[in-house]
Amino acid sequence: MTAAIETVSQWTSHGGTQGVYKHVSASCQCDMTFSAFVPPQAKSGPCPVLYYLSGLTCTHANVTEKGEFRAAAAKHGIIIVCPDTSPRGAEVPDEDVYFFGTGAGFYVDATESPYERHYNMASYVSDELPGIINSAFPANPDKQSIFGHSMGGHGALVTAMRNPGKYRSVSAFAPICNPSETEWGANAFSKYLGAGQSAWRAWDSLALIEDGGRLDEILVDQGEADEFLESGLRPWLLEEACKTAGIALTLRMQPGYDHSYYFISTFMADHIAWHAERLK
Amino acid sequence: MTAAIETVSQWTSHGGTQGVYKHVSASCQCDMTFSAFVPPQAKSGPCPVLYYLSGLTCTHANVTEKGEFRAAAAKHGIIIVCPDTSPRGAEVPDEDVYFFGTGAGFYVDATESPYERHYNMASYVSDELPGIINSAFPANPDKQSIFGHSMGGHGALVTAMRNPGKYRSVSAFAPICNPSETEWGANAFSKYLGAGQSAWRAWDSLALIEDGGRLDEILVDQGEADEFLESGLRPWLLEEACKTAGIALTLRMQPGYDHSYYFISTFMADHIAWHAERLK
Repeated sequence: MTAAIETVSQWTSHGGTQGVYKHVSASCQCDMTFSAFVPPQAKSGPCPVLYYLSGLTCTHANVTEKGEFRAAAAKHGIIIVCPDTSPRGAEVPDEDVYFFGTGAGFYVDATESPYERHYNMASYVSDELPGIINSAFPANPDKQSIFGHSMGGHGALVTAMRNPGKYRSVSAFAPICNPSETEWGANAFSKYLGAGQSAWRAWDSLALIEDGGRLDEILVDQGEADEFLESGLRPWLLEEACKTAGIALTLRMQPGYDHSYYFISTFMADHIAWHAERLK
Repeated sequence: MTAAIETVSQWTSHGGTQGVYKHVSASCQCDMTFSAFVPPQAKSGPCPVLYYLSGLTCTHANVTEKGEFRAAAAKHGIIIVCPDTSPRGAEVPDEDVYFFGTGAGFYVDATESPYERHYNMASYVSDELPGIINSAFPANPDKQSIFGHSMGGHGALVTAMRNPGKYRSVSAFAPICNPSETEWGANAFSKYLGAGQSAWRAWDSLALIEDGGRLDEILVDQGEADEFLESGLRPWLLEEACKTAGIALTLRMQPGYDHSYYFISTFMADHIAWHAERLK
């Protein structure tokens, strides 16, 4: 049984329906909000689903308003689902920084108090939310893919590697490739997962690859003018790990582009077309 | 001599440059902010310019973030310029309603005190801003067109009619076709232009057409689920006036669409392609 889903708002757009929905999440023990675009092709049958995981500080709204994904999704007949980046609410523990707590769930399942009750974004994104989508939307449950930006780009890589066979394809915009070795990730992982770095390896894309995690292929776009390139993203580490592991990574360095939605929206249609090929 | 233009922010996007700029406006006697997208084609020569006038409550930012115009502008090699909707600043007279004053300049030149000093959006949009664009951007001054949404859709129609030969083409999303007969317009016109309705006729698209104003052709998209269709927009009045006057209006009623950017962004690429044909 799926819990009740409340329609927060709905618009006709690009021939389909863009909606924002709310439900009580069992994984996160709070209300969770997500957006979903259902393309016009859904009128004649179930459509593949592409999950988009957002970056630090975002909600579903940033990509829904600025991501420019609907034209391509309507062209290829793909449902686009955009979850929130963390649990939220008065009862959810938080800190007053942008890179931890609210807006910064890092797509892990927390084990440490006081975070383990609510911060279970991994289960939410890979299990609970697809359950809702597959039962309440015109979705083909056998055809799903995943992508995302920054913290969410990393979340897409990790979610796909931790769930072999669940996603047809995975891509990322400017992913945090090795969060354990960044200030953002080390802070979050130590609080969500404990101080022992061995527990972090199951939630870090680079460590996962080193420990045998595999993907058939990965598409990554990365802006060369990204202000977080050296301090937080470091795609060259992913490139090296994929080379060693024999994973087909297409890493496209994009001159002049930064970390914003002006970058993401530029390559959005490309990524959707790439996933569409693999969701056929 | 053009006054100094300050670059507020700039991003690489869709192969071109999206910027936000600020300058002291002679028409509006205050700082004015606008956005401009310069497509990649500008590297090899001057490009046509398409001005987008926004609706009530908006600034340059709404369409810049949500309008999804850059892909089409980059494809067709067109500069897109998005001005603000009114003068702004501590010294600019205002009222605490959304349909007058700040965010609601209605693209007129005010004649009444205390508005006549700052509220000169007509001169700003049709004269001062093109002067800046043509001198500071890689623009072809002989090729400009204009479009807009709601108050700005009407602004585009009026600006083009009041400046014969200045614009190659004009289109609108959900324009306020006959503002004099709406609560929004009557309130604004009485304060900007005075209580005598005869002065309003020079700033109302329907009255302008009745009084001999002409355009070669007009493209209008209008959502059938638009919440302001009856109370504020009334495209059937424009249809009738154009029919009587022999103006080639293409009015496309779009089932299911409302007044939001989810509607505008759906038909944005169509409008840009239509203007591109006429800017060749």
